[in-house]
Amino acid sequence: MDLDSKLSEVGRNLRSSLIRELLKFASVPGSISFGGGVPDPDTFPRRELAQIAQEVTEKEYKYTLQYNSTEGDDELATQIIKLLDRMYGIKDVKRDNIIFTTGSQQALDLVARILLDKDSICFVEFPVYLGAASAFRMTMTQFESIPLEDDGIDVDYFEKKLEELDNAGKRKNFRLLYTVPNFHNPAGVTMSLEKRKRLIEICDKYDIIILEDDPYGMLRFEGESLPSLYSLAGPERVILLNTFSKILTPGMRIGVIIGRADIVRKVNMAKQGADLCSPGLNQRIVARYLERYDVFEHLKPAIELYRGKKNTMIKALEENFSDIKGAHWVNPEGGLFIWLTLPDGFDTMEMFELAKAKQIYYIPGEAFTIDDGKSSSMRLSFCLPSEEKIIEGIKKLKEITVEYGKTKGLI
Amino acid sequence: MDLDSKLSEVGRNLRSSLIRELLKFASVPGSISFGGGVPDPDTFPRRELAQIAQEVTEKEYKYTLQYNSTEGDDELATQIIKLLDRMYGIKDVKRDNIIFTTGSQQALDLVARILLDKDSICFVEFPVYLGAASAFRMTMTQFESIPLEDDGIDVDYFEKKLEELDNAGKRKNFRLLYTVPNFHNPAGVTMSLEKRKRLIEICDKYDIIILEDDPYGMLRFEGESLPSLYSLAGPERVILLNTFSKILTPGMRIGVIIGRADIVRKVNMAKQGADLCSPGLNQRIVARYLERYDVFEHLKPAIELYRGKKNTMIKALEENFSDIKGAHWVNPEGGLFIWLTLPDGFDTMEMFELAKAKQIYYIPGEAFTIDDGKSSSMRLSFCLPSEEKIIEGIKKLKEITVEYGKTKGLI
Repeated sequence: MDLDSKLSEVGRNLRSSLIRELLKFASVPGSISFGGGVPDPDTFPRRELAQIAQEVTEKEYKYTLQYNSTEGDDELATQIIKLLDRMYGIKDVKRDNIIFTTGSQQALDLVARILLDKDSICFVEFPVYLGAASAFRMTMTQFESIPLEDDGIDVDYFEKKLEELDNAGKRKNFRLLYTVPNFHNPAGVTMSLEKRKRLIEICDKYDIIILEDDPYGMLRFEGESLPSLYSLAGPERVILLNTFSKILTPGMRIGVIIGRADIVRKVNMAKQGADLCSPGLNQRIVARYLERYDVFEHLKPAIELYRGKKNTMIKALEENFSDIKGAHWVNPEGGLFIWLTLPDGFDTMEMFELAKAKQIYYIPGEAFTIDDGKSSSMRLSFCLPSEEKIIEGIKKLKEITVEYGKTKGLI
Repeated sequence: MDLDSKLSEVGRNLRSSLIRELLKFASVPGSISFGGGVPDPDTFPRRELAQIAQEVTEKEYKYTLQYNSTEGDDELATQIIKLLDRMYGIKDVKRDNIIFTTGSQQALDLVARILLDKDSICFVEFPVYLGAASAFRMTMTQFESIPLEDDGIDVDYFEKKLEELDNAGKRKNFRLLYTVPNFHNPAGVTMSLEKRKRLIEICDKYDIIILEDDPYGMLRFEGESLPSLYSLAGPERVILLNTFSKILTPGMRIGVIIGRADIVRKVNMAKQGADLCSPGLNQRIVARYLERYDVFEHLKPAIELYRGKKNTMIKALEENFSDIKGAHWVNPEGGLFIWLTLPDGFDTMEMFELAKAKQIYYIPGEAFTIDDGKSSSMRLSFCLPSEEKIIEGIKKLKEITVEYGKTKGLI
């Protein structure tokens, strides 16, 4: 059987995540990896979760070992309603505004499936979170990339682009703007309050649904929290995604969609076809954890840990890269990533070969483009290596940069 | 915001599962439900699973609480390779022929996404497992329904239909035949060995991929096991789906796809976009369970239980429905379902209102058609009600049938 002749358009169009390919060798002993965006497993409350897992499997087996409902655990929904108030000051969320998904990734996929057609225009940030890009791409939608600035999405560019597309008769194809407003993955930037308000005005004007993805919002190291787009504009304009992956554990694979009841209902129908339900066991474990423990208290040591590592990396970048003219990075107020941009002409994908040879791993910016375009940027994650390794790794990265730059006549 | 104007074609086309709607009231006290297809939770080894859940959460937290790989747990793969040998005599399955999914439902969705386009022709059985129909429908594919007979799919009809479509120039659109060969849901029938061989010949001739779904295969009450289509034709022709939902617990949401490595690789890429990974915790729990316990030994009491209930239901049908001319049912050799067909002219969806008033629940055959066509059949599940309730329920179902039949002038 010749598979190529049997594949659907979607099937032919699929590609493996560049990150996965790049990181295959990153666990080799002696290497320093700034690649992976995963939390440190020692920050997970494993003893508490283990105890609860035992308990809900044995005592609540009629729920935890049976099929779950498609919308997910009602007890977890009760906890989420409380969390939304604490996290964002969001009130008035009812059970039918909530659906749990198999990780945020499924939330992205399901929202895309109910909203995006081949001729739809889906607005994404540039650089884009590549999990979102890979979900959206499966609908075969059209993309428009809106550049990120140090204070978030370039609203002027966005507005101009919309006018241009509107003039070309494409207004009817506008669907979705996808944004990660806090501690962006990969760019590390946070959208300013002013931009949040402008963005909502623009999307109101052109009737574009805002898909707000906030996995990192609670991982703030410094500065003041800004109101979420959902709290500013409400469910008439915004669908809010969140997850327990960064504040508790990614292993449970629990994402959540907060949105208008009719949108949630459509997502529910799509989920019935996509995986019927996510495991109730995992949802009930998290519900009981949230009942008994204060997840924000639990998170404090992790935030301390990440803040220290982030500061170390920023300092190392300042020490090593300040003399490279045109190199640029933003000091993130939270999250897991720093986005380092090298001078024009650098190709961080090509440079990756050199870095690999010296056992330093990062994610080339190319991974965060819609069209695999060349990029002079890279994503550096500070969450897993020790501070010592961060210092050593950034120093080596500088050497690699200089070596590559000289070979190419760039510095 | 007007959602209708924002929905994708897939979004507009979605509908809620009829079963879900029908069963909303089935848990009212005093009712007897033959509706749900879920296993009896008292057959789940909850103590063993609870103990393992505690253990792997605490001790193996670096795996169980972290992101999983998209293909799933290698240790569970090792166990599946052993199980495939024991269940089907299938050997030569390697790690890269295996991917775990969030329940079998996700396996159906992912296979559909990589193979089915809008103009593809997807062959399904009639009646069809409605989970498969709802997954396939999201690709907007064309369906062709092939009737089931008492010994499985009508291969003569299938062959004629293929000739007809081939003559109409549609051969290039043939993609997939989806079949549940053992103890079909909803029809209860098992495909004979002769038909299995004919089916493979036909699919070889027209180069159609067979998607074999076998969730119930291990729930055999009587008769001899028949070789799976995968064991007969191998991965060049067949993709095999299985799940732990019916032999261990559905709560873990673990499905598995066995297929050619290039197909599995494409499914993997689609899964990266669909939910990134299924929870490692659940997979590791099942892996450890399979290591320590014999799942087939564990299954024996459940099989005894279901066999007793099935025999009770068959006896009750014989006692009550033998005098209704044209009524027909098959005595299933395993699984969870009996398919009862009433004489022509009966509309079991319409009759459902009458049944609901008398607190008897079944699933009207209409739920198992691609186009919501009227049906004189119904699915009866014997797994949850007690034998006493089965006897009482079938007696009442007879009364309902007679009452409806008289009102309509059918009997």
